[in-house]
Amino acid sequence: MNRPRARDIGIDIGIFKPGPLNTITDVDGVLVGNVTLMEGEGPLVAGKGPVRTGISVILPHGGNLFREKVPAGAFVMNAFGKSTGLQQINELGSLETPIALTNTLNIPRVADALAEWSILQSPEIGITTGTVNPIVGDINDGFLNDIQGRHVGKEHVFKALESARAGNVEEGSRGAGTGCMCMGFKGGIGTASRVLPVSRGGYTLGVFAQTNFGGMLSVNGAPVGREMGIFDFIEDVAPPSRQVETPEGSCMIVIATDAPLDQRQLVRVAKRAGLGMARTGFYGGNGSGDFFIAFSTSPRYPHKPGSVASYPVVSNDAMSAIFAAAVEVTEEAVINSVITAETVIGRDGHTGHSIEIDRLTRILEKYNALNWNENLLPFKNR
Amino acid sequence: MNRPRARDIGIDIGIFKPGPLNTITDVDGVLVGNVTLMEGEGPLVAGKGPVRTGISVILPHGGNLFREKVPAGAFVMNAFGKSTGLQQINELGSLETPIALTNTLNIPRVADALAEWSILQSPEIGITTGTVNPIVGDINDGFLNDIQGRHVGKEHVFKALESARAGNVEEGSRGAGTGCMCMGFKGGIGTASRVLPVSRGGYTLGVFAQTNFGGMLSVNGAPVGREMGIFDFIEDVAPPSRQVETPEGSCMIVIATDAPLDQRQLVRVAKRAGLGMARTGFYGGNGSGDFFIAFSTSPRYPHKPGSVASYPVVSNDAMSAIFAAAVEVTEEAVINSVITAETVIGRDGHTGHSIEIDRLTRILEKYNALNWNENLLPFKNR
Amino acid sequence: MNRPRARDIGIDIGIFKPGPLNTITDVDGVLVGNVTLMEGEGPLVAGKGPVRTGISVILPHGGNLFREKVPAGAFVMNAFGKSTGLQQINELGSLETPIALTNTLNIPRVADALAEWSILQSPEIGITTGTVNPIVGDINDGFLNDIQGRHVGKEHVFKALESARAGNVEEGSRGAGTGCMCMGFKGGIGTASRVLPVSRGGYTLGVFAQTNFGGMLSVNGAPVGREMGIFDFIEDVAPPSRQVETPEGSCMIVIATDAPLDQRQLVRVAKRAGLGMARTGFYGGNGSGDFFIAFSTSPRYPHKPGSVASYPVVSNDAMSAIFAAAVEVTEEAVINSVITAETVIGRDGHTGHSIEIDRLTRILEKYNALNWNENLLPFKNR
Amino acid sequence: MNRPRARDIGIDIGIFKPGPLNTITDVDGVLVGNVTLMEGEGPLVAGKGPVRTGISVILPHGGNLFREKVPAGAFVMNAFGKSTGLQQINELGSLETPIALTNTLNIPRVADALAEWSILQSPEIGITTGTVNPIVGDINDGFLNDIQGRHVGKEHVFKALESARAGNVEEGSRGAGTGCMCMGFKGGIGTASRVLPVSRGGYTLGVFAQTNFGGMLSVNGAPVGREMGIFDFIEDVAPPSRQVETPEGSCMIVIATDAPLDQRQLVRVAKRAGLGMARTGFYGGNGSGDFFIAFSTSPRYPHKPGSVASYPVVSNDAMSAIFAAAVEVTEEAVINSVITAETVIGRDGHTGHSIEIDRLTRILEKYNALNWNENLLPFKNR
Repeated sequence: MNRPRARDIGIDIGIFKPGPLNTITDVDGVLVGNVTLMEGEGPLVAGKGPVRTGISVILPHGGNLFREKVPAGAFVMNAFGKSTGLQQINELGSLETPIALTNTLNIPRVADALAEWSILQSPEIGITTGTVNPIVGDINDGFLNDIQGRHVGKEHVFKALESARAGNVEEGSRGAGTGCMCMGFKGGIGTASRVLPVSRGGYTLGVFAQTNFGGMLSVNGAPVGREMGIFDFIEDVAPPSRQVETPEGSCMIVIATDAPLDQRQLVRVAKRAGLGMARTGFYGGNGSGDFFIAFSTSPRYPHKPGSVASYPVVSNDAMSAIFAAAVEVTEEAVINSVITAETVIGRDGHTGHSIEIDRLTRILEKYNALNWNENLLPFKNR
Repeated sequence: MNRPRARDIGIDIGIFKPGPLNTITDVDGVLVGNVTLMEGEGPLVAGKGPVRTGISVILPHGGNLFREKVPAGAFVMNAFGKSTGLQQINELGSLETPIALTNTLNIPRVADALAEWSILQSPEIGITTGTVNPIVGDINDGFLNDIQGRHVGKEHVFKALESARAGNVEEGSRGAGTGCMCMGFKGGIGTASRVLPVSRGGYTLGVFAQTNFGGMLSVNGAPVGREMGIFDFIEDVAPPSRQVETPEGSCMIVIATDAPLDQRQLVRVAKRAGLGMARTGFYGGNGSGDFFIAFSTSPRYPHKPGSVASYPVVSNDAMSAIFAAAVEVTEEAVINSVITAETVIGRDGHTGHSIEIDRLTRILEKYNALNWNENLLPFKNR
Repeated sequence: MNRPRARDIGIDIGIFKPGPLNTITDVDGVLVGNVTLMEGEGPLVAGKGPVRTGISVILPHGGNLFREKVPAGAFVMNAFGKSTGLQQINELGSLETPIALTNTLNIPRVADALAEWSILQSPEIGITTGTVNPIVGDINDGFLNDIQGRHVGKEHVFKALESARAGNVEEGSRGAGTGCMCMGFKGGIGTASRVLPVSRGGYTLGVFAQTNFGGMLSVNGAPVGREMGIFDFIEDVAPPSRQVETPEGSCMIVIATDAPLDQRQLVRVAKRAGLGMARTGFYGGNGSGDFFIAFSTSPRYPHKPGSVASYPVVSNDAMSAIFAAAVEVTEEAVINSVITAETVIGRDGHTGHSIEIDRLTRILEKYNALNWNENLLPFKNR
Repeated sequence: MNRPRARDIGIDIGIFKPGPLNTITDVDGVLVGNVTLMEGEGPLVAGKGPVRTGISVILPHGGNLFREKVPAGAFVMNAFGKSTGLQQINELGSLETPIALTNTLNIPRVADALAEWSILQSPEIGITTGTVNPIVGDINDGFLNDIQGRHVGKEHVFKALESARAGNVEEGSRGAGTGCMCMGFKGGIGTASRVLPVSRGGYTLGVFAQTNFGGMLSVNGAPVGREMGIFDFIEDVAPPSRQVETPEGSCMIVIATDAPLDQRQLVRVAKRAGLGMARTGFYGGNGSGDFFIAFSTSPRYPHKPGSVASYPVVSNDAMSAIFAAAVEVTEEAVINSVITAETVIGRDGHTGHSIEIDRLTRILEKYNALNWNENLLPFKNR
């Protein structure tokens, strides 16, 4: 059941180098935690199960985020979604809780737990200082999951937070990706990273994606969805090769970096996530509520700063390489989420089929889409 | 304990006529419900009490809102707040749940309950159709209330929804206004309405305000806060006349109308709420998270519409009178919230002092700010 | 013909102290220049005259703005207007030309001249570096002016720029204010400033307003427009006391400060301008295209910066006093524009009547709206 | 010199069918006009030449646009650009002039001419009614063109407008595309169209693109830029195969449709243009000011409408196919702009090299990127 990641099978997206683990945790200080909930099977009993959902959390650092906030910016590609807390990020320019991802109807329970966790860390919240802004993103996993059940509770949120760590990151049908469907295949969570050349600042960027959107899967340019006969609108253009469910969904993209950026620059970075998604086959369907959050681990903003403070920020002119890296790292994180996702059979026998790796590889060979960084000019002679 | 409303003591703001009750429920179909939570006294025991909070709900109509949505638009004056659901309103152009108002840390629990209530009405949510977008607005009532306790539970949300009705509307230190402070006085909830002349469409506009913001109270132009020595920054300009707490807060404004408007026009209407607030002394303090939602009760949008439908919409040229009415009705709703609010003693003896009506009246007389629609040209000869 | 300013006749708006001249030029380094065009009279001959228009320019500093940009942010209250260049300000966070104000149809000619002036100063523009982003704001002065004529040419733009200086600022029916109408009275250009207490940072804020909007004039709370029977919608509520023209218009507000702010904070400052306008009677009419630009004179951003740089910025918590000052200084600048504006008879005998000072004073006395900083608690004992 | 379009050489992007001409003019009523300015050669003499620029105009219909406006919406991907008029489009929901595209520094002169042309058609502008909102988009063609010269004058604007017609559309190094560079190749103007299946409404969408941006050219997924060693950041990852200039630039995308859409829906459509660009290699570089405008030819809004009117609008649920078509038609229009663009030698010998068709074809064959609609499942058996 060990499924490969994209690079394991020769899919090397883009031109910049990945970090050591090719995960969002390559950004120094960033932690990730997942809790997966899979229980029951068979017909849906609303509020009971089957349960195919979970929670993922991303922490900019392991300290007290309320007291040591980080710069952040958010961009909404399509606001058909219920993600919470993004408006304050853009107003005040900072993030003060972990980012949690879950299913749509579960947002409130997760936000409540996130607030409680913050209060435990910072008992002054709401008493001697202001309140806290929990950030929760979402997708609709109701095709596989008993979403009415809102099965992610406080204990799962706390467990995800406590288990969050640096290093390797689970991908696929785990955590918030458990019930995801992506372009007709099983989707899930995926991650990737890039390290810019020193001449471009040497910064690391990492992405964590929760993929649940419609489209026509394209991998390094190869028309995988079309080859397999699995994509949105197939019934409009050709007889489908097999019965396929392509439920409309959503996507959450979280971008982390150690580049010193402020809210204005981080909004610009977040805005590029959609470009990376587009290269995988995303077209922005009506039902796809797509929310992008970018944060920097540097500098940190104290909760009670002096009245004036100086912070470094990358100049506009130096942003282009960061933008280019944000696009390709998003693309790879999305592809990783699909390739790593195992098949999940959910409510009413609804099935999220994992993509078949052999067939995928054959298609990529047909389209010469493998091992570009070894084979492709101008790289082959390096 | 019966406190007057603004017009009862001669404060007749603006030039357009109020509706029959001068409440948001003058907009045909609109229902309002409140649940007030006041328990315990003395020192704050975090998570226990004292409790000084509540919930207010505004329903565009008494039917199934998920299946018969209404046009809506939202504008955020200052996003230092956690109000949820507003982004989707602007993307899709409609409102599909009641609007609930409560305290900041309680948003998730109220949103969860609102989703559950919607599911009870529309069991297809998340199973055979998409999910639901609960709308919850907030202020920080932590000066008076044990806000960490998140005391508003599902039972209170359901009770507020079930008790919602047309007709008279409670104001002041009730429902979501229980723990509010406004410009140094006890704030709360307030409402008002206007009926446009037939030549301007004859539409009704109503406002429901939850007032918890800082400033320098001005009533029909009279500098009430300055006269009483109670306002933000007083320590910068003069010795305060008495010890006053002016905790920074927020404001939620909900505007209802029967004018047929779409999302673009309703955003424009919502944007005018800040202008009405400004006339009461609001200056947009950093800590004031101010969110404005406008909805129309007409037309209704079915959940599963045809692929194309025609709906009436007021033309741009005809919007000016609606905008002018939105400004003055917001102003009056804010003033009503302050005048009607009874004194509340909360956590640690913190006290929200109700404004003294006699003193207010004397100040208004000094500034000739009463009974303008009777006394003031060009109206006196009508 | 010498008309007073608001404070000359006892109208002392707000609680913070004005700067030495109570002008935008109190912000160190800021320069203002005006060119007034008044030629011809009688019936409109489209493209010929009568001419009742002009140009005003505001320079953040007297050096090369393209090479030494300043932080800036913009907010659009109502985008029914043609102001140009604001989007780039918000994307890149800086201002690189003077701000020019003129009439709507003249924007392109003024923008062309502003670009040319920038090229003369910085011949590298478009050759060895990028292009330049001219900022031009506008109002529609077509009620008095032959606006089709687009009479402001390059020579006038250059003359305004060359004559720009610190110190006293012309107000009223001058420069870009020549053809303005404001709430039924002659409008124009107005300015004011505030100096914050040292405890609040000691910053100076200045506003330059070009006022051409509809509403119901309110001066320090006194209902001046209603007393005089001159306001929008009067025909809906009462017989007008005299025939009055209240053409719909627009408003441009430029806010300067020496507080170190970045684009995010400056957008927040700009957003408060509408609150100040609201206190003068503004209600955001459909035809009022209202654009607000805020800039800081500190720090300066070089055109070719290093890839990372540190700049000071005021913290969120310290913004409230700046916001409060922005509101009251905008209010005073608008009132100054109306009080200082001389009567102008324009095309077809259309007349912009200056407000009668004696009558204004009597009304303000009736409403006890004068000399608050001397008479009003808590100030009288200072 | 006759260069092929993408489909002529087997590049058949996407799954929906093009319209009869595969141009924006397939949308009934839409007209396009171009004027190309190419004069002089050799070293740049600022203000004199060489001239490598032009103007393109797109008209939603051939009637009086001021009196019969059309629905429109705009989205700004990156506001590092000077495009004018977009804010009013979103506020009022309509377009009232042709859309003109030109070079950045020439915007004011073109806007002035567009206003004049509107006044000639509607002499009431600014006299008995409001003013007019000219829409002008831009790219920076200063790599090839004497951009300081602002060579596009009124006569060229008028000529473009008068010569605008339905039917075939010039592409490549013509009109506003004369001086464009795109991802290291000669860019220019390009167009394409799609007709949705009847089951999806049967609507036509057309795109007109002005392409001047950086990136790494990808054609139907094939890494053309990498194969040719021509792309941004090549110096960071490998020795460039030849000296290549990839000046940072911008992109304007105009989307036309006959689907009945309002401003909210058209903004959503415009937002998808970036997704189509992303598939061609666009990554949103700092210097790329990317502005997208979408308009519908149906319904038309009269300048002086009744106070309420009903217009049809496509429901949210029915938007997905329109979004998908918007993405692929944008992709094809961009590719057309590059493939059709002839080599242009400009100022100082700067050269915009047209892409070599034979080499392109060989690369596309290597990546199996040709004739998908004939060869590729599930289409081959249709």
